[in-house]
Amino acid sequence: MLKKITLATCALVVAGSALALEPEKAIKYRQAGYSYMGWNMGKIKANVEGANYNQAEVIAAANTIAAIANSGMGALYVPGSEKDVGKVKTYVKPEFFSKPQEVAKVAQAFNKEANELARVAATGSAAEVKAQFDKVGGTCKACHDDFKMKN
Amino acid sequence: MLKKITLATCALVVAGSALALEPEKAIKYRQAGYSYMGWNMGKIKANVEGANYNQAEVIAAANTIAAIANSGMGALYVPGSEKDVGKVKTYVKPEFFSKPQEVAKVAQAFNKEANELARVAATGSAAEVKAQFDKVGGTCKACHDDFKMKN
Repeated sequence: MLKKITLATCALVVAGSALALEPEKAIKYRQAGYSYMGWNMGKIKANVEGANYNQAEVIAAANTIAAIANSGMGALYVPGSEKDVGKVKTYVKPEFFSKPQEVAKVAQAFNKEANELARVAATGSAAEVKAQFDKVGGTCKACHDDFKMKN
Repeated sequence: MLKKITLATCALVVAGSALALEPEKAIKYRQAGYSYMGWNMGKIKANVEGANYNQAEVIAAANTIAAIANSGMGALYVPGSEKDVGKVKTYVKPEFFSKPQEVAKVAQAFNKEANELARVAATGSAAEVKAQFDKVGGTCKACHDDFKMKN
């Protein structure tokens, strides 16, 4: 109970969200968010590492990642979503739910760098975008290392 | 071949995208995008129909929907993704691939209304957001009716 209260006060959780979610749906939605960010990270990677730099594509991808980062994904870690629900598998580690302060820290770092990437993408060069893209990737990895199982 | 060329020239497709995608991944990514938009549509619906209106949540949700709408989802309809790939099921109707002009029309209508929703959400009242939310929902339904199988 104490853990729940602590988690509810951390920055990840959208206070007073109007939508109650079943654990199965919450797992699917959060995986959808990460998956869609993954596609957009891949597009930016291909642009900053490739021969051609498509600025419009990079801006759209960076805006999408930032918007998803800002969308309150913490609300998708509802009680009951700590483990697989039926055929829906989750790859979140138990530590995610027992270390809310550490989770808040990595989540805030990701949000900060993702928003900065959208800002840099709007006007920056391919090299500037690459540098900031690497920072975002670092925050993804930091969270995965600590809170995501291998899948 | 002619159909491919026609589709490639329609507004849905990101010209010169640096990322080549396997059909299986393309189906998963597009479903992730629609799923994540669905969660965010649900949050806005709950806010505009409920007793409490959480403007910050609505803005974040509307920005996410608009960003995904602008992210070039057309690039996720790669050749080979017209039908199920292994265990990955798709619910797109064959008509999606044979009527590119009609697809472009519904896609552009959705993008226009989604971007307008983000604009209205930033400063509008709950009633104004509700009116624009209904317009977005109408464009979702128009596309589903014509181009999505029941699932």
